[in-house]
Amino acid sequence: MADRAIGIFDSGVGGLTVLKAIRDLLPGENLIYFGDTARVPYGTKSQRTIIRYSIQNARLLESYRIKMLVVACNTSSAHALEILREEFPFPVIGVVKPGAKLAVSATKGGKVGVIGTEATVKSHAYRKEIISLNPFCEVYEKACPLLVPLIEEGWLDDPITKEVVRRYLEPLVEEGIDTLVLGCTHYPLIKGVIGELYPHLNLIDSADAVAKEVERNLPTKRKGERGFVKVLVSDRTERFERIAKMIMGREVRVEEVNIDKE
Amino acid sequence: MADRAIGIFDSGVGGLTVLKAIRDLLPGENLIYFGDTARVPYGTKSQRTIIRYSIQNARLLESYRIKMLVVACNTSSAHALEILREEFPFPVIGVVKPGAKLAVSATKGGKVGVIGTEATVKSHAYRKEIISLNPFCEVYEKACPLLVPLIEEGWLDDPITKEVVRRYLEPLVEEGIDTLVLGCTHYPLIKGVIGELYPHLNLIDSADAVAKEVERNLPTKRKGERGFVKVLVSDRTERFERIAKMIMGREVRVEEVNIDKE
Repeated sequence: MADRAIGIFDSGVGGLTVLKAIRDLLPGENLIYFGDTARVPYGTKSQRTIIRYSIQNARLLESYRIKMLVVACNTSSAHALEILREEFPFPVIGVVKPGAKLAVSATKGGKVGVIGTEATVKSHAYRKEIISLNPFCEVYEKACPLLVPLIEEGWLDDPITKEVVRRYLEPLVEEGIDTLVLGCTHYPLIKGVIGELYPHLNLIDSADAVAKEVERNLPTKRKGERGFVKVLVSDRTERFERIAKMIMGREVRVEEVNIDKE
Repeated sequence: MADRAIGIFDSGVGGLTVLKAIRDLLPGENLIYFGDTARVPYGTKSQRTIIRYSIQNARLLESYRIKMLVVACNTSSAHALEILREEFPFPVIGVVKPGAKLAVSATKGGKVGVIGTEATVKSHAYRKEIISLNPFCEVYEKACPLLVPLIEEGWLDDPITKEVVRRYLEPLVEEGIDTLVLGCTHYPLIKGVIGELYPHLNLIDSADAVAKEVERNLPTKRKGERGFVKVLVSDRTERFERIAKMIMGREVRVEEVNIDKE
């Protein structure tokens, strides 16, 4: 049982930021990552489709006999977490709760901003979680559909990206937020731009918090040497490998699987 | 046979520009449109996946007993047209050839620019088609992955969109192009911005040319009243309906179908 892997899925490449944080904290564990690159992105799709894809992804990882599932995708975490917990026998960890906890402990003024995909923001998952932890918090949410394409284009430290970030964030900053949840696994890659524009904001990147949540909830801990890391995708593209290298800081070996069959 | 519909598919909403052009030219024909919104976009995906999805889409439309298929998606036209022609008994019209023809007849200096998705540009389908029509043409291609997200965000007449367009097009303009193929069905929506920046360019929007190609190749023409227009999607979202309205200039009734079963 201890040797069984931890399964991690995301709609695409962004969840590798979570894989990396888990790998750094728990180097002994075996990790299997699945990026649903044939159907990415999820953030513009309907709740029904997001749930269907999330269950298929979990089923794929289940076939590798995992001991735990991490939903690294904010959109899936926001819409499908409860259903995954009902459907599968292993513990399921999402990214919303750990991020919300961090935000609540970081804010001084009690005003928290949340940015994410259209579907994540529409679910109000972060707002609900933050308010259940501290009913006095005020939460300001904003969908930022252009940030993922800008990051995937590699325009990380770029005046256009800065201008787009300003357009999205200005209304939240005017409301007086002091803390901003980066509610999409891609966003940590433009922390620099956001921090330059708004140095007073606490930026909440949940990857490390998720890794700690994984550690706390591990059914059995693997002992011994470094574990393996396996990366699966539903569509193998140069694009994935290029961005994976940007996130992991090294070449990533990728294997293609057919997700429609699940 | 004459009453059978013309089937049209696209990866998402953009192909409605083609549907509209066909409707305007051939109001008597019955039209069935399928937008693969559950798996959109195609432009960042691999050739194998684009071909697989295109065949599934054609099979779905075949089940409605169509008399002709129009591939309104540039990415699918660039990668899957030949295979669709081999697989299916009805005539198959793509968007690349009509666009290439228009470009060749429009250019005076023989230097043509082509913009499109990563996959369309990587296929060099426009370059091949243009050069087969006129071997003296020089073709300059550029992938513009941010334009679709900007258009879908509704930032049509916007300084940020202008800046992004300038970033992408400046190198082509410096090469001396006098004609630019809008090699993605979304792009006609930002014709205004492109024309403002580069008023000397002939902008090639192939929707009308495709409609004429459809008329020329129709196996049988339907006589009588206005035909019906049916719009199917694989994922029903507000987003689709919002952008559909922007393109069609009126509310569009949409029906959801399951594409995985095809």
